[in-house]
Amino acid sequence: MPISSTPPSGFRDFLPRNLELRQKISQTISGVYRSFGFEPVETSALENLEVLTGKGGGENEKLIFKALKRGEKLVEALEKNEELSDMGLRFDLTLPLARFYAANQSLLPRPFKAFHIAPVWRAERAQKGRYREFTQCDLDIVGSDSWAAEVEIISAILEVFDALKIEEITVLLNDRSLVDQALSIAGVPEEKRTAACILIDKLDKVPREKIVEELSLLAGEQASKAVQALLLGDSENRYAEVSASSYARLKDISSGISRFNKNARIQITPSLMRGFDYYTGPVFEFRHPKLSGSLGGGGRYDRLLEKFGIPTISACGGSIGFERLILLLEELGYQKEDSGPKFFIAVFSDEMLPRCLQIAFELRALGQTVDLYPGPAKLKNQFKYADQKRARYALIIGPDEAKQNQIRIKDLKTGIEKLADFDSLANLPD
Amino acid sequence: MPISSTPPSGFRDFLPRNLELRQKISQTISGVYRSFGFEPVETSALENLEVLTGKGGGENEKLIFKALKRGEKLVEALEKNEELSDMGLRFDLTLPLARFYAANQSLLPRPFKAFHIAPVWRAERAQKGRYREFTQCDLDIVGSDSWAAEVEIISAILEVFDALKIEEITVLLNDRSLVDQALSIAGVPEEKRTAACILIDKLDKVPREKIVEELSLLAGEQASKAVQALLLGDSENRYAEVSASSYARLKDISSGISRFNKNARIQITPSLMRGFDYYTGPVFEFRHPKLSGSLGGGGRYDRLLEKFGIPTISACGGSIGFERLILLLEELGYQKEDSGPKFFIAVFSDEMLPRCLQIAFELRALGQTVDLYPGPAKLKNQFKYADQKRARYALIIGPDEAKQNQIRIKDLKTGIEKLADFDSLANLPD
Repeated sequence: MPISSTPPSGFRDFLPRNLELRQKISQTISGVYRSFGFEPVETSALENLEVLTGKGGGENEKLIFKALKRGEKLVEALEKNEELSDMGLRFDLTLPLARFYAANQSLLPRPFKAFHIAPVWRAERAQKGRYREFTQCDLDIVGSDSWAAEVEIISAILEVFDALKIEEITVLLNDRSLVDQALSIAGVPEEKRTAACILIDKLDKVPREKIVEELSLLAGEQASKAVQALLLGDSENRYAEVSASSYARLKDISSGISRFNKNARIQITPSLMRGFDYYTGPVFEFRHPKLSGSLGGGGRYDRLLEKFGIPTISACGGSIGFERLILLLEELGYQKEDSGPKFFIAVFSDEMLPRCLQIAFELRALGQTVDLYPGPAKLKNQFKYADQKRARYALIIGPDEAKQNQIRIKDLKTGIEKLADFDSLANLPD
Repeated sequence: MPISSTPPSGFRDFLPRNLELRQKISQTISGVYRSFGFEPVETSALENLEVLTGKGGGENEKLIFKALKRGEKLVEALEKNEELSDMGLRFDLTLPLARFYAANQSLLPRPFKAFHIAPVWRAERAQKGRYREFTQCDLDIVGSDSWAAEVEIISAILEVFDALKIEEITVLLNDRSLVDQALSIAGVPEEKRTAACILIDKLDKVPREKIVEELSLLAGEQASKAVQALLLGDSENRYAEVSASSYARLKDISSGISRFNKNARIQITPSLMRGFDYYTGPVFEFRHPKLSGSLGGGGRYDRLLEKFGIPTISACGGSIGFERLILLLEELGYQKEDSGPKFFIAVFSDEMLPRCLQIAFELRALGQTVDLYPGPAKLKNQFKYADQKRARYALIIGPDEAKQNQIRIKDLKTGIEKLADFDSLANLPD
């Protein structure tokens, strides 16, 4: 029985054309991030397990692909019934960045403006559009508590959408500290606030009445009503009562963004929570009408670095969901211009191979892209190949052409053939 | 106790400057590979375990970081004392490429010329210069048995070295099928030939006498002497006796390469084996006098795809060891030109922030790279930051400058300051 060649469930192979599109978009993203003064970083795919789980594990632990211990350590772990794993694949880029900053802070500018475009892995059930290996495009500012950080991060992401000609983006904005204060005012006791946040976060998927009911069960009917008034709606008009200073800051962010990004609509949305529990201040999310769910998001995390022994340092990060971006671009009919090698060299016979190699090398020395068919084959098959590779011109050098020191050029767009000498090749139009 | 921020042993963080160098070199490699008509592919980091181990496991199995099974499957595996892992991280790029080809062949041109630049993971003991996560730069031609394939692959790699101004490269060349025939002629029985190859492969690290002694123990003194004559030397002059046709082919490859790569020395080296057991024909390796060990290598593997149910198809691949390349470039004093953002904007006060943001956005709209300090801080700290970021010009807009609609420009190379208006900014030299 042969071994199955299908990738594991939730994992993908990328074919050249598909990959070239991904690479081009990834370059657009890093180009924009760079133009905002962010610098690239890279961290290891595997992290020590406690970096990913914190000390205690928790919800995220289920997401982690864990690496089995090896050799004697595995034997010992099995014997003693201990943890079988010592490392895990990262499931996001924020935790690794926090670790990175803690490890390298003395070498980094402060504030540190970083971006990181890389795969992450999540052991979730694979389904349409949800993969177990996927790319994220994060950018972070560590060491600034100014609202300028949010404006710059959100604007850089909006600029990426702009560069890709994606219109109709809405930015949802909220502040987790305002949510916390609102829940406090509503009378939800501190220990129940995380649960209340998780309930409110489901507003997208669960009917409103159901959430109200659950809130009543959680915190009583009176608190539930107060929460509804303060948070369950798109209206921000009660936020000024909750905290004038936090609300003013949210308005600074909002007006900063709309001032410099003419095409984006900003919407302060009191029910926006964002999943991760490390957010402590403003949070944001990008939406597009053609996509259910978000295109990306982020927020301020002022305490994430504490677990690595760093005194409180204010940080803010945002991320584009690369796979969702690709999905949207496909939906919108985005296409990369289709470019193959400029020259394809057909190989007539083994005897002609040295001459073909020579022409290939001389053209490449002139900076041309040259695809040489590796060895002789039926010309029909070679032209099929040239077609699949989207080559622009085919060059054929048979014994007759070689004798006359000529090259037969076939324009693969028009089908027109002509004889020419080597010097005329470099001047052929693209 | 805080969590340690050090990456796991054998894993690395890449800081911006370091990473930019790596990215630049990686772009050089992919540019050269493309110019030879190779197309990029990408496969998943995790593969089903049997893809990596074959059916039987073996030597390579020890290299694999295995992913622990999850949920019920893990419980069941522990109960039934079964394999605890279902997937593993790839330890090279050749096996994944073979699987990729088998999975996608109907969508691929034939022959298929692919390149793949990506990390691999090996659970080896970490030591100086040897990491457990490192990058390889493979290129392969699947579906051609012409010697042109070797010439193109080896030449593309030599062209990379050339583009990076690395001189003094030696290409070692051999043919595993010639080795096999030589061992047969020498009287080494078939079942002992792999062991004999492994012995000969150690010629680099183990004294010659020791290897001769071990060969005698393995196959008898007479066979050992015959092996010495045929294989244990750099001289190729007995190869014509072993197989005239295979030797002629090796000479074709050798002369093809030297004809088109003037700077490379080619050396047919009968003792060259290359580690992996999937090689069936010509093998090669790149050496540089400043580096012990190889800079990369490759060979022909005609039977690797059979395990995925593909009928015999001739394939040939080569690889540059990215980490060793970086090491050599550092040794040779290679440097990337040091470029930071063109503009750094200092923020005088919170009141001036909107004006600073505005200038940043207007400059970016003109295609400039602009690093804005996120929020006000001591100017001394801001200039230290601009220095760390290698910015070219600092822009300062205090209340006086704003009133006059002017910007104070500080040339960070010369230290000279002047007042100017916005329109003059875009014309400042780099």
